[in-house]
Amino acid sequence: MGAPDLVLADRLFRDLAEATGAEPGITRDSYGAGEQAAHAIVRREAEAFGLETEADAAGNLYMTLPGEDRGRPAVFIGSHLDSVPHGGNYDGAAGVVAGLEAAATLRRCGRTPPQDVTVMAIRAEESTWFPVSYVGSRAALGRLPAEALDVARADSGRSLERHMADCGLDPAAVRAGRPLLRAERLAAFVEVHIEQGPRLIGDGVPIGLVTGIRGSFRYRKARCLGRYGHSGAVPRGYRQDAVVGAASLVCALDALWRDLEAEGHDLSLTVGQFATDPREHAFSKVAGEVGFAVDARSLGKPTLALVRDRLQELCAEISAQRDVRFELGELSDSEPAPLSAALLERFESLAEDQGIRTLRMPSGAGHDAAVFANAGVPSAMLFIRNAHGSHNPAEAMDLADFGEACRLLAGLIGDGWS
Amino acid sequence: MGAPDLVLADRLFRDLAEATGAEPGITRDSYGAGEQAAHAIVRREAEAFGLETEADAAGNLYMTLPGEDRGRPAVFIGSHLDSVPHGGNYDGAAGVVAGLEAAATLRRCGRTPPQDVTVMAIRAEESTWFPVSYVGSRAALGRLPAEALDVARADSGRSLERHMADCGLDPAAVRAGRPLLRAERLAAFVEVHIEQGPRLIGDGVPIGLVTGIRGSFRYRKARCLGRYGHSGAVPRGYRQDAVVGAASLVCALDALWRDLEAEGHDLSLTVGQFATDPREHAFSKVAGEVGFAVDARSLGKPTLALVRDRLQELCAEISAQRDVRFELGELSDSEPAPLSAALLERFESLAEDQGIRTLRMPSGAGHDAAVFANAGVPSAMLFIRNAHGSHNPAEAMDLADFGEACRLLAGLIGDGWS
Repeated sequence: MGAPDLVLADRLFRDLAEATGAEPGITRDSYGAGEQAAHAIVRREAEAFGLETEADAAGNLYMTLPGEDRGRPAVFIGSHLDSVPHGGNYDGAAGVVAGLEAAATLRRCGRTPPQDVTVMAIRAEESTWFPVSYVGSRAALGRLPAEALDVARADSGRSLERHMADCGLDPAAVRAGRPLLRAERLAAFVEVHIEQGPRLIGDGVPIGLVTGIRGSFRYRKARCLGRYGHSGAVPRGYRQDAVVGAASLVCALDALWRDLEAEGHDLSLTVGQFATDPREHAFSKVAGEVGFAVDARSLGKPTLALVRDRLQELCAEISAQRDVRFELGELSDSEPAPLSAALLERFESLAEDQGIRTLRMPSGAGHDAAVFANAGVPSAMLFIRNAHGSHNPAEAMDLADFGEACRLLAGLIGDGWS
Repeated sequence: MGAPDLVLADRLFRDLAEATGAEPGITRDSYGAGEQAAHAIVRREAEAFGLETEADAAGNLYMTLPGEDRGRPAVFIGSHLDSVPHGGNYDGAAGVVAGLEAAATLRRCGRTPPQDVTVMAIRAEESTWFPVSYVGSRAALGRLPAEALDVARADSGRSLERHMADCGLDPAAVRAGRPLLRAERLAAFVEVHIEQGPRLIGDGVPIGLVTGIRGSFRYRKARCLGRYGHSGAVPRGYRQDAVVGAASLVCALDALWRDLEAEGHDLSLTVGQFATDPREHAFSKVAGEVGFAVDARSLGKPTLALVRDRLQELCAEISAQRDVRFELGELSDSEPAPLSAALLERFESLAEDQGIRTLRMPSGAGHDAAVFANAGVPSAMLFIRNAHGSHNPAEAMDLADFGEACRLLAGLIGDGWS
């Protein structure tokens, strides 16, 4: 089989950027004009080279290259087409374009795959628009709660139901909660995505093979409470300094992360927000309050439980030392999603045969693949080397690296998977 | 000589609170209605028991109990009458009321002091109104730069010059910069003030004898700069986390303070503001920027210089360890003001005679006494025990403690000072 020539991919990336450009970057709003335009472009290209296309009640688009045995469960290659506001051209779309490029490669070589190959363009993955995770994939698998239809889009204020109806879709069928796609119909779900961190660039490797999707716990509205005081008049021993209290916690969490990682735990631990109260603070006041957020992620449920316990202990220790008080507030969490070891090994052996260097790595961010994995579908993710992270116009993926992901996909679907 | 009976003081505190009440607390705006009302009340009371009153071009009010030798330099007892918005009744006013109570005590006992005793009600000490320090005392001593007259009041937007004129004063004479009060006319300047920290309460002592007024340096707009990244996707070794960088600095400064204090340095070291950027931060993002403020205060110039050097070194160390960068921004500083050791010892021996317990302590906040001390006038400060700090309606000074300060003042002026 020939290698992907990337003619289709190159054209699709250009068409998508042109149709949804919103300087700086691109905007493909979930169930809005940007996402609609992207779906139309992708569908037109898929039909142009003979794929069967179909959309479900939630607007997920299925583009199928028929296989020899049409009764066999299909290999799905899927990702989302929506983006954050003023995001980059690749977060989401690259996974759909990779699937189409792989299918086009088979078609160009006159190869019929052993089973159906379906490229799935999923709706509404970016929760900046509707504050609900995985709208499209959960709707497809009948796992979206009915209440989600009533959630308002952050910018328009209109409900998800209303937005779906305005796109000509069928929100009533989504609300009914029946699966629009039966999980048994899938032999595998594969999601290709640009890496959102710097590891592949740092290690000089084009493709990451994702070992699992990290679960998380978050305290988004934690507080450290002390007592305001005059910076010149309150001696050290009398202070209840919320900045010192919260900063001590940040340093202790960083040391905890270092130690657990050295012991072999998969973990990331982040305090991304940290702020004294602008209505009260002053350069000449000991701070009486700090608001902060803790985000912990791991492939291991026991690691997450351990970090939660240690966090509680650290807060108690620092409270005693610094005469402050911590209120961690409401917890939100998600379970780690294990990806298929068999699929990962298949990609590893394909990469070896094709001379593509790969690196095993966890996914720290959530992805639609987690929904499929948790529904029992053998699932895999490939990361493509990418600079400057994602969710911003500076995303920088090399088309040659993208081509390596397409080659791996073509290898998988050409031989089939069961 | 009899003890102060506090009849005058009690009435004055009540009249002041009533005339300038602004729930919660009181508001005596500098060169505005609140300060004007306070000056009128104090002047009326002083005249009622026979003091000579006079105001200078800047509106500072001088209330003089004539002494036996009117040619001798006078003992000045002074403080300010303005307050922060919604402040407490004592920060500032207590010093003026104490002077009047001491003078009234002499008058009530039929005692004529050996030299003139002048109670000075100073203008515009609280820099929340005009962002200029010590307006009234510097104007009196001819040390206020002409440009200060052009500074706008934070709330009204009108200039200091305009506010002075609206109060019927003479801003042109102030702008000319000639002393309105000759420093040689003062044998001493004594300022009584509530303590703005918790030490006297903590140690169970009513009166603090102030050893000196701390100098300071401040970086009000310092920044720690890193790189934004996905909290799940950027591994520990790749992070340039501004929160970890700035928190490490906070912890290192706290340890530096602890160590220097153990070595005998007088110091306070505060990070009162610390904030990630609300336009950019998120619980799921490694923070790329933190803004913070550093405030260092000490009686010792060499200590301040040492802390500045160590701060630079710590920033360099943390930058190297954490791959972040510090920009400390503009520095502002003030010199420590030494108070008179002779006056302090005089008050200490008066307290011993009168059975009043005292504690030697530095003043961490700036006060008008610093202006007099730096102009060569032998100066002293007495702190009165006070709960809940100052600059808020919850200031809580016990009138009995206030009476001890009045007794010490009466002792000093009764015997005279040269």
